[in-house]
Amino acid sequence: MKEKLVGALMFGQSGGPSSVINASAAGVFTEALKHSDCITKVYGLAHGIRGLLDEDFYDIGQEDEKELLLLKNTPSSALGSVRYKLADPKKDDTDYKRMLEVFKKYNVRYFFYNGGNDSMDTCNKISKFMKKSGWEMRVMGVPKTIDNDLFGTDHCPGYASAAKYVATTTMELKLDATVYDKPMITVIEAMGRHAGWLTAASALACTKGLGPDLIYLPEVPFTKEKFLADVKAKYEANNGKVMICVSEGIAGEDGVLIAEKMNENVAKDSFGHVQLGGVGQMLATLCAKEFGCKTRGIEFSLMQRCGAHLASKVDVEEAFKSGAQAVKYAVAGRTDKMVVIKRDMSSGKYKGKMSAVPLKLAANTEQKIPQEWIINNGTMLSQAYVDYALPLIQGDCKAPLEDGLPRFAHLKKVQAGKKA
Amino acid sequence: MKEKLVGALMFGQSGGPSSVINASAAGVFTEALKHSDCITKVYGLAHGIRGLLDEDFYDIGQEDEKELLLLKNTPSSALGSVRYKLADPKKDDTDYKRMLEVFKKYNVRYFFYNGGNDSMDTCNKISKFMKKSGWEMRVMGVPKTIDNDLFGTDHCPGYASAAKYVATTTMELKLDATVYDKPMITVIEAMGRHAGWLTAASALACTKGLGPDLIYLPEVPFTKEKFLADVKAKYEANNGKVMICVSEGIAGEDGVLIAEKMNENVAKDSFGHVQLGGVGQMLATLCAKEFGCKTRGIEFSLMQRCGAHLASKVDVEEAFKSGAQAVKYAVAGRTDKMVVIKRDMSSGKYKGKMSAVPLKLAANTEQKIPQEWIINNGTMLSQAYVDYALPLIQGDCKAPLEDGLPRFAHLKKVQAGKKA
Repeated sequence: MKEKLVGALMFGQSGGPSSVINASAAGVFTEALKHSDCITKVYGLAHGIRGLLDEDFYDIGQEDEKELLLLKNTPSSALGSVRYKLADPKKDDTDYKRMLEVFKKYNVRYFFYNGGNDSMDTCNKISKFMKKSGWEMRVMGVPKTIDNDLFGTDHCPGYASAAKYVATTTMELKLDATVYDKPMITVIEAMGRHAGWLTAASALACTKGLGPDLIYLPEVPFTKEKFLADVKAKYEANNGKVMICVSEGIAGEDGVLIAEKMNENVAKDSFGHVQLGGVGQMLATLCAKEFGCKTRGIEFSLMQRCGAHLASKVDVEEAFKSGAQAVKYAVAGRTDKMVVIKRDMSSGKYKGKMSAVPLKLAANTEQKIPQEWIINNGTMLSQAYVDYALPLIQGDCKAPLEDGLPRFAHLKKVQAGKKA
Repeated sequence: MKEKLVGALMFGQSGGPSSVINASAAGVFTEALKHSDCITKVYGLAHGIRGLLDEDFYDIGQEDEKELLLLKNTPSSALGSVRYKLADPKKDDTDYKRMLEVFKKYNVRYFFYNGGNDSMDTCNKISKFMKKSGWEMRVMGVPKTIDNDLFGTDHCPGYASAAKYVATTTMELKLDATVYDKPMITVIEAMGRHAGWLTAASALACTKGLGPDLIYLPEVPFTKEKFLADVKAKYEANNGKVMICVSEGIAGEDGVLIAEKMNENVAKDSFGHVQLGGVGQMLATLCAKEFGCKTRGIEFSLMQRCGAHLASKVDVEEAFKSGAQAVKYAVAGRTDKMVVIKRDMSSGKYKGKMSAVPLKLAANTEQKIPQEWIINNGTMLSQAYVDYALPLIQGDCKAPLEDGLPRFAHLKKVQAGKKA
């Protein structure tokens, strides 16, 4: 236990929303408010580091505890998010100096940042700069990403709820899409630019006999020819009923996105400047042409990342705990770390344990699906993936109903910074 | 109470699936199996009247009761659906004679058909033909449609669950789509070719402060000019954050779908024969061009009609009851009717009561949203709509979880007909 460090805590949310990023906020806030002997104020940044640079933040101590706990089941980023890439401080340290100024002005001694790869890079840079500047502070990263591609953690808070959305909805769609006694090719598109974790979750539906026949991930180079041959084999085996799940990020050997390749020759300047659908819709259309049957492209779009009504209980609880653990670590003297989840199977049953890794390891490193988990000539996930993912989607946990609709958190957002 | 009629019952599902069409099947089956004194066999038709014409049906008496009850929470049509328009019997009675032959062969005295407008037309034609032929039988329609456009009923089983999906998901999307401190126009597309009931359900999200700013229904002629002016006003009032919900079926004064109008000049024969997104995506692209900001088109696609994990308890129970009530009516001697739901507010609280109307009234009549419920110059729903719809989406009712995923019904489907 290091010496007690007394001062304010600042917390920000960054990157794309998830169903449980607010659960981590609830974990940070409720735990921080317990440590009033060292954490004198708890601030929530409006729009991440944008709020830090602009002195735009809220006094979380003014919020009702009930509302803070409702954050556990409120999707998206309640404080607002941001995508802002900090410069290399060796080239331009303007932003860093400004942050230091704000930290000093409000005696901020705890800085926590919640996000994915880019956000951990931001957090790491701030941590290193403040250390070099001699401003004593404890900096912690709290992991979050539906993409599940953060390095150093077994999985990321946010992934399991999105995976549960993908698996459950795929099961429902399978029942719907096979209802007529006619051929039908359905192509579902899930998020994932570089890693196919979310698309892979459709394989969980296969364990119930209601999954896709073919899965395409960014981890496997995609060719139109192999795709059509794969579909043809399934089409013939299943009386023309084929369900396919693809990642938005599938790409050719050359690394160029299939969506871009297929877009190339399309008129760009027609009436209404019609924008094309995603790669799922494009492949559905390709199949319609090739097989002459009905097809449908379905995009899970933002629903997969904000569908908190389908959140996993394990995920909500781990997201909350990872936030609370960040506070405990920092109060105990740790800094420059990202909280991670370790898989503990010692009891024979899955248990998630909190731990921490150096921030610089988590920053900008992508974790993809192991190649050995991708089977059937690159079109399906193995049992090893199912064993990995299934424990994470257990249990339901959603907002209470009010008039039949979710009762999400209402924050007062009492301004604490001197916003310009 | 009419004389007892002894014979088999045949039940078929028709038209597009819904989250609760199987709940009606569960109601028919469990009630019918109680009346073995007059209902000697309970048959489930594979793919609606296709199964009748092909002698392709299942012996429901062989199913486990537990699985029949799980149908209450299993989306889509477990028996398979069909879209098959019967000829006018005056012009061509081939199909009708074939049906009569099958009814006689299996001594079918009860025929129940579950579906929307077209299905009630089918049911009505069969009822009239069999009466004319002198084959004594009791024919009942069981209403089903997410479109909520069936005549003679306060609302249709299937609507409320789809409406709950639309309202809940719109709330989640609103939180997600407004998370960055930048302009963003989101256009959500809901189903509804001729009636805007499903799109209207997004107005329920407004009651929680998380709804769309603008709603466009097929009931109101659409012009691009007014649309852009409406969006501009909201864009300026809300710092560039605008959410819009549109029906797939919005059309101009001339009745031509906007989706078709916007499609007109787009290259149709490019690489991969790329198919265009729906009208939501098109309007999002139009806004991107007009306002120069980020936009996103989101389609609820099949999820809105098969998202049984978000089913309304009121809807599931009414769907079940309407199936059971059809059996009770028929056993008591009624025929040539469709079961309907009447709204009973006599206790001050909503209560749905079962009743019946002549089949011919329900066939092919569309019920649209009353014009007086459409306010704000055709862009919003009134409190009268909210008062109508909110009682219908109350309560949750979904399949039990198994491994964190829904446990849907597994039917044995023991073949009973002499399928060719």
